[in-house]
Amino acid sequence: MTRGVGLHLTQPLHRALREGADAVATIDGARVRTWRETVARVRRAADVLAGHGVAPGDRVALLAPNGDVFVDLLFGTMWAGGVLVPVNTRWSAAEIAHALVDSRPRVLVIDHGFLPLLPAIQVAVPQMPPVIVSGGAASGFDDWEALLAAATEAEEHLRHGDDLAALLYTGGTTGASKGVMLSHRALLTYAMCLAGSGESAPGACMLHTAPLFHVGALSGLLASLLNRARHVFLPAFEAGAVIAAIAEHRVSDLFLVPTMVQSLLDHPSFAAHDLSCVERVYYGAAPIAPALMDRAIAAMPRVGFVQGYGMTETSGSVALLKPADHRHDTRVRSNGRAVMAIEMKIVDAGDRELPAGERGEIVVRGDAVMAGYWNRPEESAAALRGGWMHTGDVGWMDADGYVHVVDRLKDMILTGGENVFSIEVEGALSCHPAVAQCAVVGRPDDHWGETVHAVVVLRDAATADELIAHCRDRIARYKCPRSVEFRSALPLSAAGKILKAQLRDEAKDGR
Amino acid sequence: MTRGVGLHLTQPLHRALREGADAVATIDGARVRTWRETVARVRRAADVLAGHGVAPGDRVALLAPNGDVFVDLLFGTMWAGGVLVPVNTRWSAAEIAHALVDSRPRVLVIDHGFLPLLPAIQVAVPQMPPVIVSGGAASGFDDWEALLAAATEAEEHLRHGDDLAALLYTGGTTGASKGVMLSHRALLTYAMCLAGSGESAPGACMLHTAPLFHVGALSGLLASLLNRARHVFLPAFEAGAVIAAIAEHRVSDLFLVPTMVQSLLDHPSFAAHDLSCVERVYYGAAPIAPALMDRAIAAMPRVGFVQGYGMTETSGSVALLKPADHRHDTRVRSNGRAVMAIEMKIVDAGDRELPAGERGEIVVRGDAVMAGYWNRPEESAAALRGGWMHTGDVGWMDADGYVHVVDRLKDMILTGGENVFSIEVEGALSCHPAVAQCAVVGRPDDHWGETVHAVVVLRDAATADELIAHCRDRIARYKCPRSVEFRSALPLSAAGKILKAQLRDEAKDGR
Repeated sequence: MTRGVGLHLTQPLHRALREGADAVATIDGARVRTWRETVARVRRAADVLAGHGVAPGDRVALLAPNGDVFVDLLFGTMWAGGVLVPVNTRWSAAEIAHALVDSRPRVLVIDHGFLPLLPAIQVAVPQMPPVIVSGGAASGFDDWEALLAAATEAEEHLRHGDDLAALLYTGGTTGASKGVMLSHRALLTYAMCLAGSGESAPGACMLHTAPLFHVGALSGLLASLLNRARHVFLPAFEAGAVIAAIAEHRVSDLFLVPTMVQSLLDHPSFAAHDLSCVERVYYGAAPIAPALMDRAIAAMPRVGFVQGYGMTETSGSVALLKPADHRHDTRVRSNGRAVMAIEMKIVDAGDRELPAGERGEIVVRGDAVMAGYWNRPEESAAALRGGWMHTGDVGWMDADGYVHVVDRLKDMILTGGENVFSIEVEGALSCHPAVAQCAVVGRPDDHWGETVHAVVVLRDAATADELIAHCRDRIARYKCPRSVEFRSALPLSAAGKILKAQLRDEAKDGR
Repeated sequence: MTRGVGLHLTQPLHRALREGADAVATIDGARVRTWRETVARVRRAADVLAGHGVAPGDRVALLAPNGDVFVDLLFGTMWAGGVLVPVNTRWSAAEIAHALVDSRPRVLVIDHGFLPLLPAIQVAVPQMPPVIVSGGAASGFDDWEALLAAATEAEEHLRHGDDLAALLYTGGTTGASKGVMLSHRALLTYAMCLAGSGESAPGACMLHTAPLFHVGALSGLLASLLNRARHVFLPAFEAGAVIAAIAEHRVSDLFLVPTMVQSLLDHPSFAAHDLSCVERVYYGAAPIAPALMDRAIAAMPRVGFVQGYGMTETSGSVALLKPADHRHDTRVRSNGRAVMAIEMKIVDAGDRELPAGERGEIVVRGDAVMAGYWNRPEESAAALRGGWMHTGDVGWMDADGYVHVVDRLKDMILTGGENVFSIEVEGALSCHPAVAQCAVVGRPDDHWGETVHAVVVLRDAATADELIAHCRDRIARYKCPRSVEFRSALPLSAAGKILKAQLRDEAKDGR
């Protein structure tokens, strides 16, 4: 069978060149670039990477905030045939080091704002790759802009279809984060699906507030690119700056997590600006409180809200709750329907499909699903058993195909759009000498969705503040407990397992 | 790398079951079936096919008009893991026999209306497969309905991704028709793309008038199925019946070829029915004359017209001209922009990309492109050289990415050293009020190489000299017809395309 060239992530770039080379592509602060300029930079970026030894299939690690340099590296890596490893900028040095040791990139591009982390990273990574600094020169390091200026425009290494495009590290259910392998086809199939959901429109202006190292923001960028959007970047979410950027650039599309929605509505400048340009707000990554949703709809009546439910392993949202669904009494309380590229069903513990209304695990399949976890064949096979991605989420589907996510993998905590796995926090806590036993659960919170709550049995004296400080030395700040409760014993099952469901209920009641 | 399950053509069926099992699926005359009933039939169809020896990868040939039995066989073949070979119902016994000899199906399902062709087919096919008759019992043959009634509901053989789903025979430019190999991924990627083009809507009602053995109608069915449409079938195109069916079933979506558009507008009952339910008319498969387009827009001002440009080898239209484009002065004269799943460019004879505005061959790539021609490795490699499908069409692209198809490479007329594009001459001729239909071909000439020859169907009286004079007011003298032939009708293919090859042959023979 003759094989043509399958979906490839540079396709939207080629399209942008053919359909409007001189249209605005990116706006990053005062810096505005057209597609023609962007592609020229991408080609130079590919030349720089190749000069650093990046061959097809090699990994390129990136530690940078949102911005046009992220676009250089995303597409420059693809152009060079490489595999992007966009590192979570909120991670500790130890967590970053884990991703580098696991993925063995050929080069690390780091924004100069993260240079203070570098010594600790270098100590923890035996085979440290060469480092390039972006966002400003730093003595002793190659400077990204200087390298680009000296580069030539490389020819494309056309990787496509099942070829690996990105490794996105996600908190594993059993502790250390795992690299989710997403192919060119997976990411672009999903982007097509989102771009064609009927909830996006050609000529949009997308403001990127959520971090691009997360799959939701990354796939949102690819989808809006397919719809010929221009892209406005802010380095981080700050409500006042977001509101000002919306008004200045006439932003039509936003991707937010629920905590961001609340911050925008609460901000004193919200009412003072003309935000009538906003047409669509995508939100997700955490459940949104009904009261907050109602408030958001009332404050922005013209806006179409689109909720996404998905995960890194599926390249983005596998289900969307569309604007019309938000005006429907019962559907608004669901998590929407499967996107076109995804088949979704609910199964019991034996992987048998359950009828409408019955709770079970949500499983999905289709081209947007990951190829597996990097270097973890057993965990990959388990997650993808029978050809279905097992989400670890519990839910049910109504007779119209709307999925209701009722519980997550029971140990996972969703706080401010981030997944926190309790076992990882418990690991950090339990290495404190005063801690005899501990359990970490999510506690419902109007602002964050959930906060991290620790229940601890002490063997020696310690304060909550001491334990939280101990954790901050070991794991990212957002993973650290926000509240600590001391007990003389943890509730145990007959088999000796800690009864986390009971602790969760007690934490909820104890608000 | 772990491989999940890629896109599969039964996915929309599974989705229909989960999102509305008791909704109407098909309306075929007085027969109405829900999705639950349809899937039960599909599962029984798979059992029947397996009982006839169809194993995964085996071909199933179908010779039937549009109707719900076509749906049984399309999805039943997929369910059984087979490859559908939908045979052109307008072919002669010899042409049908060629497809059967070439594809070697395990079974042939034939509508009883085509039984008169069977003896001649059997003579021409040495290894004739078993025959099942649908649409009514026939003595001496297995009856499809009786077999279905006796069958059990089979488990699915899940073929997907690059697995072959269909062989669509297309008239080769050099004689015998070739089997275009379309995978599950190609057909479903294209269907997603069309369903997500923004020009279709959930809950639509699609009337299938164009024959489903053609890729345009087949992909339209898959796309509208993804959008949860219900499907109305008519066995063949007859303008009065189409108008009645639109009004009766409140049809929202139609797929037409230009000759059908004209027949509808000309029909006496057009004005007498309430056709305000029609929201979208897809048209394509042949160039439409500007005068006809203007007339159609004037007659149906609420309708969104969507023009598709594509071919069997690309699973459907690679470019769409959307409703808004029809209201744009220059874009309305183009053939639209590439759909999301397709990358398109214009190349010279050496396959080098040409800049905007320059004429060359249109080439495309992406997951929707065929895997090749069945059993024709050389022709496959030639058509797909460099990873791009070479369409054989001449065109140019403007700076906004709109493609203008100038002509088929083979329809181009070479006269006195000049290239004349037949479509341009046809455009000039067809705006003469007396001209109902026309086709322009090259006629061999010792002096000029070829001369421009017009074949015209008149609606009012006109002479050849009048028509030639009319053209001279509009296009260059060398492009004007040198000879005009009047006929009562033009020869049409099953898809309603004017058979230019036949007209060329007849012009050559001096008719």
